[in-house]
Amino acid sequence: MSRTIKKISKKIGLHPGALVHVGDQKIDKPIIELVRYNENEFEEKRLQSMEEFISSRAENKITWLNIDGLHDVGVIETIGKQFNIHPLVLEDILNTEKRPLIEDYGDYIYMVAKMLSYDDEENIVKAEQVSVVLGNNYVVTFQESVGDVFNSVRERLRQGKGRIRKDGPDYLAYSLVDCIVDNYFIILEKFSESIEDIEEVLMNDFDQDIVEKIYRMKREMVLLRKSVWPLREVVIGLERFESTLINKSTIIYIRDLYDHTFQVIDTVETLSEMLSGILEIYLFSLSNKMNQVMKVLTIMASIFIPLTFIASIYGMNFEFMPELQSKYGYPIVLAFMISIVIFMIVLFKKKKWI
Amino acid sequence: MSRTIKKISKKIGLHPGALVHVGDQKIDKPIIELVRYNENEFEEKRLQSMEEFISSRAENKITWLNIDGLHDVGVIETIGKQFNIHPLVLEDILNTEKRPLIEDYGDYIYMVAKMLSYDDEENIVKAEQVSVVLGNNYVVTFQESVGDVFNSVRERLRQGKGRIRKDGPDYLAYSLVDCIVDNYFIILEKFSESIEDIEEVLMNDFDQDIVEKIYRMKREMVLLRKSVWPLREVVIGLERFESTLINKSTIIYIRDLYDHTFQVIDTVETLSEMLSGILEIYLFSLSNKMNQVMKVLTIMASIFIPLTFIASIYGMNFEFMPELQSKYGYPIVLAFMISIVIFMIVLFKKKKWI
Amino acid sequence: MSRTIKKISKKIGLHPGALVHVGDQKIDKPIIELVRYNENEFEEKRLQSMEEFISSRAENKITWLNIDGLHDVGVIETIGKQFNIHPLVLEDILNTEKRPLIEDYGDYIYMVAKMLSYDDEENIVKAEQVSVVLGNNYVVTFQESVGDVFNSVRERLRQGKGRIRKDGPDYLAYSLVDCIVDNYFIILEKFSESIEDIEEVLMNDFDQDIVEKIYRMKREMVLLRKSVWPLREVVIGLERFESTLINKSTIIYIRDLYDHTFQVIDTVETLSEMLSGILEIYLFSLSNKMNQVMKVLTIMASIFIPLTFIASIYGMNFEFMPELQSKYGYPIVLAFMISIVIFMIVLFKKKKWI
Amino acid sequence: MSRTIKKISKKIGLHPGALVHVGDQKIDKPIIELVRYNENEFEEKRLQSMEEFISSRAENKITWLNIDGLHDVGVIETIGKQFNIHPLVLEDILNTEKRPLIEDYGDYIYMVAKMLSYDDEENIVKAEQVSVVLGNNYVVTFQESVGDVFNSVRERLRQGKGRIRKDGPDYLAYSLVDCIVDNYFIILEKFSESIEDIEEVLMNDFDQDIVEKIYRMKREMVLLRKSVWPLREVVIGLERFESTLINKSTIIYIRDLYDHTFQVIDTVETLSEMLSGILEIYLFSLSNKMNQVMKVLTIMASIFIPLTFIASIYGMNFEFMPELQSKYGYPIVLAFMISIVIFMIVLFKKKKWI
Amino acid sequence: MSRTIKKISKKIGLHPGALVHVGDQKIDKPIIELVRYNENEFEEKRLQSMEEFISSRAENKITWLNIDGLHDVGVIETIGKQFNIHPLVLEDILNTEKRPLIEDYGDYIYMVAKMLSYDDEENIVKAEQVSVVLGNNYVVTFQESVGDVFNSVRERLRQGKGRIRKDGPDYLAYSLVDCIVDNYFIILEKFSESIEDIEEVLMNDFDQDIVEKIYRMKREMVLLRKSVWPLREVVIGLERFESTLINKSTIIYIRDLYDHTFQVIDTVETLSEMLSGILEIYLFSLSNKMNQVMKVLTIMASIFIPLTFIASIYGMNFEFMPELQSKYGYPIVLAFMISIVIFMIVLFKKKKWI
Repeated sequence: MSRTIKKISKKIGLHPGALVHVGDQKIDKPIIELVRYNENEFEEKRLQSMEEFISSRAENKITWLNIDGLHDVGVIETIGKQFNIHPLVLEDILNTEKRPLIEDYGDYIYMVAKMLSYDDEENIVKAEQVSVVLGNNYVVTFQESVGDVFNSVRERLRQGKGRIRKDGPDYLAYSLVDCIVDNYFIILEKFSESIEDIEEVLMNDFDQDIVEKIYRMKREMVLLRKSVWPLREVVIGLERFESTLINKSTIIYIRDLYDHTFQVIDTVETLSEMLSGILEIYLFSLSNKMNQVMKVLTIMASIFIPLTFIASIYGMNFEFMPELQSKYGYPIVLAFMISIVIFMIVLFKKKKWI
Repeated sequence: MSRTIKKISKKIGLHPGALVHVGDQKIDKPIIELVRYNENEFEEKRLQSMEEFISSRAENKITWLNIDGLHDVGVIETIGKQFNIHPLVLEDILNTEKRPLIEDYGDYIYMVAKMLSYDDEENIVKAEQVSVVLGNNYVVTFQESVGDVFNSVRERLRQGKGRIRKDGPDYLAYSLVDCIVDNYFIILEKFSESIEDIEEVLMNDFDQDIVEKIYRMKREMVLLRKSVWPLREVVIGLERFESTLINKSTIIYIRDLYDHTFQVIDTVETLSEMLSGILEIYLFSLSNKMNQVMKVLTIMASIFIPLTFIASIYGMNFEFMPELQSKYGYPIVLAFMISIVIFMIVLFKKKKWI
Repeated sequence: MSRTIKKISKKIGLHPGALVHVGDQKIDKPIIELVRYNENEFEEKRLQSMEEFISSRAENKITWLNIDGLHDVGVIETIGKQFNIHPLVLEDILNTEKRPLIEDYGDYIYMVAKMLSYDDEENIVKAEQVSVVLGNNYVVTFQESVGDVFNSVRERLRQGKGRIRKDGPDYLAYSLVDCIVDNYFIILEKFSESIEDIEEVLMNDFDQDIVEKIYRMKREMVLLRKSVWPLREVVIGLERFESTLINKSTIIYIRDLYDHTFQVIDTVETLSEMLSGILEIYLFSLSNKMNQVMKVLTIMASIFIPLTFIASIYGMNFEFMPELQSKYGYPIVLAFMISIVIFMIVLFKKKKWI
Repeated sequence: MSRTIKKISKKIGLHPGALVHVGDQKIDKPIIELVRYNENEFEEKRLQSMEEFISSRAENKITWLNIDGLHDVGVIETIGKQFNIHPLVLEDILNTEKRPLIEDYGDYIYMVAKMLSYDDEENIVKAEQVSVVLGNNYVVTFQESVGDVFNSVRERLRQGKGRIRKDGPDYLAYSLVDCIVDNYFIILEKFSESIEDIEEVLMNDFDQDIVEKIYRMKREMVLLRKSVWPLREVVIGLERFESTLINKSTIIYIRDLYDHTFQVIDTVETLSEMLSGILEIYLFSLSNKMNQVMKVLTIMASIFIPLTFIASIYGMNFEFMPELQSKYGYPIVLAFMISIVIFMIVLFKKKKWI
Repeated sequence: MSRTIKKISKKIGLHPGALVHVGDQKIDKPIIELVRYNENEFEEKRLQSMEEFISSRAENKITWLNIDGLHDVGVIETIGKQFNIHPLVLEDILNTEKRPLIEDYGDYIYMVAKMLSYDDEENIVKAEQVSVVLGNNYVVTFQESVGDVFNSVRERLRQGKGRIRKDGPDYLAYSLVDCIVDNYFIILEKFSESIEDIEEVLMNDFDQDIVEKIYRMKREMVLLRKSVWPLREVVIGLERFESTLINKSTIIYIRDLYDHTFQVIDTVETLSEMLSGILEIYLFSLSNKMNQVMKVLTIMASIFIPLTFIASIYGMNFEFMPELQSKYGYPIVLAFMISIVIFMIVLFKKKKWI
């Protein structure tokens, strides 16, 4: 967290639009990849510099320019001039701590998304910012470092499978963002597995299975909710769609269905609340049991420890202990002990511990 | 959870619209059921292949085609072509991890819902995805496996009871979704029973009935809230309906009623907050009691354990223990013990434990 | 809860509009009460059957028909035909597990509300569903059983007090719903009293009054919030009302007032958060104290229990215990004990318990 | 709470518009204060009865009529007739348990607010309902008892300071509500002080300052949030205002600023969540430490208490204890004790307590 | 908190628009800084009094007037008259406890923001109110004390870098607010570091790393959520933008992408809920373990402490203890002890502790 904020504070005090790269430098030299295609042709090469690009513009083709590495501000500026991108957008491209966003600048649309990868060694998620500029016949993408999740798009471009080569740059941009989103599932899978591992370890601590039972029910309830909630919108949709497919006379039945759906949702919510209530009760019952156990211990200890002390006094081997010679010493001590026991019991009764 | 995500990640990298079945294969061969009906006629048969269907189109009848089993991508594609369904919709039909949704494609409406069943053995809820395509004179339903909750609809179709044979395919689609929703209540009933069982077990742990009392009140409050909250909308409805049935002069009274209703809601909320507050206090009081018990134990132990130790020292049978022969040994030890007791009491007083 | 759901599942599989009573049968035979009135006349009788009603229609009067008992589906159907009520509405009337709702059917408005009563013996709230159908010159009410909260309305009708006989059926319907809402306060009063009883019991467990103090402040805060929040809407109203009563030059001051109000709300929220924070700290301090107490106990026990054991070894009366005869036995044992004490103290210091 | 509800239930069963005072009678006889003013003139007197008022109407002046005490329904009715106020409004004026509200009746605006005062003795907040009726040239205020927060308004009226005598009755009404709101701060100040007192007491319980540190940070975070959240609206305002003061070319920068602001808010939220997480961890660490302490105690006690018991058996002075005479008695007992220790240690190792 | 409220209550009772400074007096004499600039010229001076300013008005230049110190009401009033600012705005400028806000007065826009600074010594955040009045060719800023975050703006003005000298006063106002927002990151950085310090300390308390693991996952989840949630708006943007850059045929794919995004969000939420569930289970498992430990202790103590007491009785050295001479004394006592052990074990079995 503090690293993120530190990066941002790097920029404080500069005039807006000043180009400063706030991320870590992740590679030596920016890598510029150029892909040009239309339905029939496909061309792919790695450029040495932006000059090479400027001299090679081609008509009737869609251009995808991908830049890996943002620390070379000059390259970014050249691209900015080439595609007529506003300085503030360039600034945002360099500021790798942006939130995902979309902005329409008329001539082009600017999007920011986060490409995630899971670092198996450190068990953390790494986020890399991807900026996408979508123009009328080009897409420019900016990444912080080498390696991305776009290989399947590149492959589909090369092979011309599906609609991708037939459609415009908007379809390409869509495909790229789609890849980023799809990749999230891989990250989520890792998390999901870790959670299940921990769960299994924790569940071993319980002899009684009541916690496990409640917990499993809670989870089923989460899944239930995921089935039921969106259904409401389905039914609303049926009613609201001004489709000729839905007859007016059916609308009244659909409204009834909506009502049923709401009743299901209501019940799911009520049951969820009841489950939470039960967990609370379980916690109370744990505390209560502990109290019970502690009371037994305290009562036993409070009664017998003083008695043992008294007995141990008369177990001392001093030569001059007048009580020991007395004929009534033993019964008196016993009587005294019994009176202590009675006193203690009365006391605990009064405290309502017994 | 992780199973769900794994299924989704199966599809990553494919071009959109690529038909891949992401669920488990649940049956050997897809089963195709065809129902055709109008107000007077009814026909029902199981098809061997889609070809059989294509050759048998009938005018003036509503067609309900039900497919059980999604792994045979060819069948789905044929149906898609037959009914002119967009490839993305077909893709969604095969992706059995969709959320319930509804989409209007002009010529047809596409809906997804989850059909739930309760597995009594494993105590889990199983969800099966049902896709419904509603066209101008047909309904196509896709299910993952054999067995569904639509038998009551089939029966009503066969017998021609109610409006179902008189109305269009939209009424059929409504009836199917209605069946799915109704079936949720059976699942919820099972949950509800399990929750009540656990509750009963937990309640046995409390001698005092205060927790039980609070908990029952909380539950009554949940029910109360369910009665009161929607009432607000009823009263708003009365005021907002531009119905000729409501005179303008009555509106002012209805607004007053709205005010009363809001006061009831307000009070219910306040009482709920107070109940939560009481539970919190109860938790504090449990902790407090435990502290009390522990203090008693600690005080008793801290005073008498050292004393017993001292007494036990002079209970040792060493031959050479000069103190034992001393005439003042016994009184000195007693005095020492008393001074320890006084010291301890002063110490605990200072700690405010006594 | 499970009872409610069971009732609903009774209906599953029937075609929509099928009339089935899902509630318990609460009385033997439905009771039909007919009230007819206009400004000058008033008539009230108990009908034996719906036929009696059909034969007695009267012009220029408002009709209030009240049915107690819903299990006789025939009666409900007759009423439905008489007043031209949609089958789905009749179905909803019989389904006593509906949520409160309002629906406008053009010719009539259909409302559902819950009439609550408090069962003093079982300490639970009982809900009875009341359905109200409001037409252009009639009101029909359906209840599950005998006994309701409408007696004050009947009395006002008989005596012709207030507007009730002068106004239309909409005013009657309003009065009925108003009675239901008013009755909620009686239920809430019972709850409120129970909560205060429990609170008093719990508060006795605390010697220190800090919990009580915090809790009382929390409650005052709830009341404060109830005074302040709606005030915001008052001030917004002053600004938004396009009333000629408010001069434009005053609007700017009202906006300032709005600002003040918001500052008050802000402060109330902040103080509430601080109170919650304090309760959290109190919980921590309880845990902390417990830790302190336990440490003292553990330290005392860990030091003196082993020592006492050693002493008790040499208190055994075996004839052959060579150490006992040794001249240095006693001092060696003492030295050993002291070294144990030192060792323990060092250990606890290291654990930072002392 | 229950007192409030009881008052409301007083009214149940009466026809709407029936005038009944639901509050406590707080003073003997209602006090009627009349203030009349325009820019040049000012008149102030206490009326004996409403008749006196009726006979004294004056043109070209603004009238402020203030009534203290609501139990004399006749007075309220007379005022109602005089100013043509709807019976339902009069009913609301008498019902002192209303929520603050505002209603526009065309000829007049009706407002309800709560005037709070702090009872230093009982440490509770007392609420008094103030109803304000604002007409085209008059303001009528109704209070439950003598004593209010309007003295500063009266003073300003008398002295003719500021705009108050120059402006209309709407400004007067505004000034009155403003006084009520301002007065809330005095109540909040008392609360704030109490909270800080308790906090100080609680903080003394912690030797380590970690809780204090976290808590202080949480509070700073609350203040931070109060600075940052409304700023968002400021920036939105800058963008949305269709003011000629803002050039179009600047809008793009403002949108960037909005983005920054959102990033700040995001970070504040994340840090808040982290702080909550830390508190949770602290609670776990407390529980964990307690567990540690208890384990040490249990291990020490479980090992040494049985040993001491064995030793104390052979410390008994029975004449006939054959083991005592045996030459091997002592070593055998010692060996037995050691084996117990080993057994215990193995057991605890297996339980993973050591 | 209470300080803030006290300041506000200073003003209570004054007529609106009365100029009173409610903050602390932070400097001796207000400092008035004047900056005038256009694209070519730049002038900067410190004024002795407002008179100096009035006599020096200049055409064709943008004026930035900055006032440090608000206690001299006269100065504020003069400025108010000079720039024709509404008295209520002046009042708000002096009331340093305002929430950030923006108001459009037609001729000028009034903004309030909070400038924060971190006091390293006391570890608290200090807030200073900055009021900005933006007119058609001027900006006036009011601060409570000397020292601000605007030096970078001053520097850019002096050097004429970027757009600042070319653009109007709106750009200047934007730049000032931007500085304030940027400065928040510095404060947040300090917080972030403190939180991480505390975290590290707390994490040392756990031998098992399970808490740490869960906690780290929770944090990663927070970051994930920050990546995913705004993405949804990006995709919505793509669909909603009526940009010619997006073809209609692509829209359907984008809707599909939206669906995917929602599925990711759904999964993130579900995983978060599962993590919270796991923490709850962990808490239960801690309580459960504690219960286990306490039971062992209580059982050991309850069995052996009474036995030791009995043994110590017969270890007393009274001369007259008839049991000691009895031949069967020893075996009887042993038998008695064994019977106690059996009784205890049965008791604990019944309590289900063993």
